[in-house]
Amino acid sequence: MKTEEFNKYLEEYKVQIDAKLREIVSGTNYSEQFRKVLEYALFPGGKRLRPVLCLEWHNVFAPADEYALSFACGIEILHSYSLIHDDMPCMDNDDIRRGKPSVHKKFGEGVALLAGDALLDLAYKVLYAPTPDSEVGPFYLYSAMCGDEGLIKGQYADLYGNIETRDGLTEMYKLKTGALITLSCICGYALGNNLNYKTCKKITECLRDNITDSEIVPDDRRLLDYVMVTGFGDSFGTAFQLYDDITEYIDGETIGKTNIMNYTDLDTAKRMLNSKLNDAANTLDIVNGDTAFLRELLNKFVIV
Amino acid sequence: MKTEEFNKYLEEYKVQIDAKLREIVSGTNYSEQFRKVLEYALFPGGKRLRPVLCLEWHNVFAPADEYALSFACGIEILHSYSLIHDDMPCMDNDDIRRGKPSVHKKFGEGVALLAGDALLDLAYKVLYAPTPDSEVGPFYLYSAMCGDEGLIKGQYADLYGNIETRDGLTEMYKLKTGALITLSCICGYALGNNLNYKTCKKITECLRDNITDSEIVPDDRRLLDYVMVTGFGDSFGTAFQLYDDITEYIDGETIGKTNIMNYTDLDTAKRMLNSKLNDAANTLDIVNGDTAFLRELLNKFVIV
Repeated sequence: MKTEEFNKYLEEYKVQIDAKLREIVSGTNYSEQFRKVLEYALFPGGKRLRPVLCLEWHNVFAPADEYALSFACGIEILHSYSLIHDDMPCMDNDDIRRGKPSVHKKFGEGVALLAGDALLDLAYKVLYAPTPDSEVGPFYLYSAMCGDEGLIKGQYADLYGNIETRDGLTEMYKLKTGALITLSCICGYALGNNLNYKTCKKITECLRDNITDSEIVPDDRRLLDYVMVTGFGDSFGTAFQLYDDITEYIDGETIGKTNIMNYTDLDTAKRMLNSKLNDAANTLDIVNGDTAFLRELLNKFVIV
Repeated sequence: MKTEEFNKYLEEYKVQIDAKLREIVSGTNYSEQFRKVLEYALFPGGKRLRPVLCLEWHNVFAPADEYALSFACGIEILHSYSLIHDDMPCMDNDDIRRGKPSVHKKFGEGVALLAGDALLDLAYKVLYAPTPDSEVGPFYLYSAMCGDEGLIKGQYADLYGNIETRDGLTEMYKLKTGALITLSCICGYALGNNLNYKTCKKITECLRDNITDSEIVPDDRRLLDYVMVTGFGDSFGTAFQLYDDITEYIDGETIGKTNIMNYTDLDTAKRMLNSKLNDAANTLDIVNGDTAFLRELLNKFVIV
């Protein structure tokens, strides 16, 4: 896929996602004042990477519908909540987020705490909207990956884990950053393949224990897809965080306590990044669908 | 129901609830260290009022099963998350909770923030466990009442609402405290009557707009039950918070900014409390089931 086509594709996704996010926030029963806080946190937003991944992985297998769009936005909302809480003084104490004052700087810590809670809640509210004849398969994945199998577990390790090695760092990244990225991919896959709750629960266990299980999807073809989607998410999730660390360093910003540049030199860090991107690209070779967009996405993160 | 019988009944509930809560926490994938934080927040716990209400209202209509017990515990976990965040310096800044240091005092603010987030997440994880042939009806109620139709909305009003009148205060109480109480009752009712998602969504809208709607449950008998359960929750929820305010005052504790005693005198406050308890008791007269336990529960909150 050419860069121009990729960018157009991405922009179309962003427009869809932003419109749905506005609809979701304006549909809440909060006061105008508090809704403005939530909008401040959600807009203009970044690349909307997570919902894009969810929708794109859905589209690899079957066209995404309105429900999938809501679901993808739920993941973005979840991500946004984690940023608000993460920026607070008792966590990373960041005054700036995406070039503007972080939520607690702008509105105070109490509001920031509540806004994060409200978004976490809203995420769940949005994603759970069963169709008459289906359960919400990815639900288990969702709550696990944003909690005890991923995000919160990783944040805890980040704050209190005393990470001493490069491997320890990438292990933490796999939880803190990777879990939501993998979740985005797997949810798209699960929705696109109509996987049920039980299967998704099984997937969660396999992700945790780092095993593949032929019971998950009896069909060999779909099992292979599952393994590949997971592999893609894991590799890209870690690459994404490494990219962030390295550009922070190259741009001469003050790098945080947990940044790969504290653990190794620039050349090694770049090699680690590009190797992870390669791993992700290799999984795409095997997936049974059109992955041109995802391939181009990976290219955007290469640092030479 | 005699006090002795009531206490035995209550104790049996507590044992069941505590055992299930321990099972839920030990079933998470968090580190031993972080699980200890969650247990610190959840145990010994208070009266377990919310899960008791959920189970009891379920039992009024049909015997509660294992799923109902999980669901009830989900509500308690939700409640516990809100207490942790509420106690933090940027909110109410309370050092003591149930006679021991609050979570942020004991473990630091970062841990408290994460523990609250983790419990909110866990609550959702627990409650969503669909049986093969049913959707999770009360889900919508749950996420709405703990967010934009209840808890968070009420907490925001509490912190930033500049409440000037007694009525403004009870209105805020209806959201901040009442919503979870009403939720507990309505969830028991919804589970006990097998209400589906659409019906529960409709109920949420009716609760918000303070209307009853004959479309909710076509059967007149069940509609009447619904109106009564809601009425019970609303009245008891406000009474519960008034009881808290008044006992704080009587016990000579420093009363908070939002306490009924800042808005009126002791006699009036007591009259307000007992009148709310009366309202709740009146709804029980009409409910089609055994409400002896609930009646005795109300008696425990009378202040003469």
